[in-house]
Amino acid sequence: MTLSIAHLGPPGTYAEQAAVFYVNWLKQTTGIEATLCPYPSIAQSLQAVAQGQTQLAVVPVENSIEGSVTMTMDTLWVLDTLRIQLALVLPITHTLISCATSLDSIQTVYSHPQALAQCQAWLERFIPTVQLIPSNSTTEALQLLKQDITSAAIASMRAAELYNLPTLATGINDHPENCTRFWVISQGQTDNSYHISSPSRTHTSLAFSLPANLPGALVKSLQIFAQLDINLSRIESRPTKRSLGEYLFFMDLEADADTAKMQSALAELSTYTEILKIFGSYNILPIAI
Amino acid sequence: MTLSIAHLGPPGTYAEQAAVFYVNWLKQTTGIEATLCPYPSIAQSLQAVAQGQTQLAVVPVENSIEGSVTMTMDTLWVLDTLRIQLALVLPITHTLISCATSLDSIQTVYSHPQALAQCQAWLERFIPTVQLIPSNSTTEALQLLKQDITSAAIASMRAAELYNLPTLATGINDHPENCTRFWVISQGQTDNSYHISSPSRTHTSLAFSLPANLPGALVKSLQIFAQLDINLSRIESRPTKRSLGEYLFFMDLEADADTAKMQSALAELSTYTEILKIFGSYNILPIAI
Repeated sequence: MTLSIAHLGPPGTYAEQAAVFYVNWLKQTTGIEATLCPYPSIAQSLQAVAQGQTQLAVVPVENSIEGSVTMTMDTLWVLDTLRIQLALVLPITHTLISCATSLDSIQTVYSHPQALAQCQAWLERFIPTVQLIPSNSTTEALQLLKQDITSAAIASMRAAELYNLPTLATGINDHPENCTRFWVISQGQTDNSYHISSPSRTHTSLAFSLPANLPGALVKSLQIFAQLDINLSRIESRPTKRSLGEYLFFMDLEADADTAKMQSALAELSTYTEILKIFGSYNILPIAI
Repeated sequence: MTLSIAHLGPPGTYAEQAAVFYVNWLKQTTGIEATLCPYPSIAQSLQAVAQGQTQLAVVPVENSIEGSVTMTMDTLWVLDTLRIQLALVLPITHTLISCATSLDSIQTVYSHPQALAQCQAWLERFIPTVQLIPSNSTTEALQLLKQDITSAAIASMRAAELYNLPTLATGINDHPENCTRFWVISQGQTDNSYHISSPSRTHTSLAFSLPANLPGALVKSLQIFAQLDINLSRIESRPTKRSLGEYLFFMDLEADADTAKMQSALAELSTYTEILKIFGSYNILPIAI
């Protein structure tokens, strides 16, 4: 069996880097081979799995500096059949890639808005007058750099190597403790032999909407887990897209959904929620670089 | 006295539209005149107020479809001296602006990533093959359109009129109930004669971090307000930027911070929090178009 894995492209993005790590890990631990399929957006990576074009997708969930990747959360809520199999944590080291001979000659810097935001202070300190141009991924603008030596892009060191481009500075992210969490996503129904089948999975992710006329429902939902000593490691709100002030809540809980305690908590939770979606239980695998 | 008001530019952005409404409202209700100062980013609009370059800024906080404007929240947390004076709610109607004679000849569409995301389904239905190019604001790319008739931009109808550009379609946002909430921000210390000095302000916004070793602290914080029947209209988490999994919590509460009930709630809250910042109490003014 050869698996196919969707990720945000073109090649060289941090999503691809996480996916490459996962492919190697999968080969070593299970012998399963996998190939990578770049897609132009995170939503399209997830749709590829939902429509059966690929078996898996590796998508960013959250960055330690810029926060949630809302595209991933919103798409996961809409595409009902997807399940989280594993989380990967990738340390992020941004590199300034350019054919310019010095920082002085750079006039424009391209990158994904999250990467531009993560290097804001460095850019203001060293090249304050450049124009910052957002792109759909960190690697989208790399093709341009050879034609235009006044341009630079922020991407990974691996991207510079892949595209055979020179670098001017590395580690330019403002916070050294920069990392991004990715999820490995499959369809709920498929054979799950390619995820860690450890007896205890450490995290469960879910999302829910609340009835509009139930005051205090969010507090009650949180209390269920607090009373059972289930730690909430993340809570995030997203608009329902119906009207301003109506939210969905996304939670990561430190427990396996299959345990008796969590089953009881989830049953109680469902009495307060309008729609409750459980995205799966999984372990977290740190990526060593 | 003539006030100056910072906003995201170039002119024609939705932030400017909200600011223009506020200028007119201010003139009618108080007689105070104000002028507008466009800035290239939301962060720079807020820094302009913090550094005394302008008295006020009008910045987007939250869109009903795309959610929080994280740049506003992160900058407000860092710039300690700023206070919210008023909230404005602007209905959003996106318009496709282009010198092309038909949709068929459009090859690229420019706009702010939030606007592109809000028109995703329309774009996929009517011009599925176009390249979407993110820009720093909805109006940044409008200058290009006259030179390149294969390009289009998504901005407001008002922007099309300001730049004297033709429109190909209007109301192209996927959700008709699309609106954005803005905050009018001043320095805490300045004369506050230019906000609604109603005796009862309906909302208070605040943010806090929690000590790492205090489990259940978030639930306790929410309980304080629930027990006092103070409605929580929004909760949002943002990374502390220290390490993955550490958050700041931003809350909007439906009460005036000066009331005895809120004073007592805030005093109790401060016993659980590490850092607590109160951004101010204010009323909400809907913008009729």
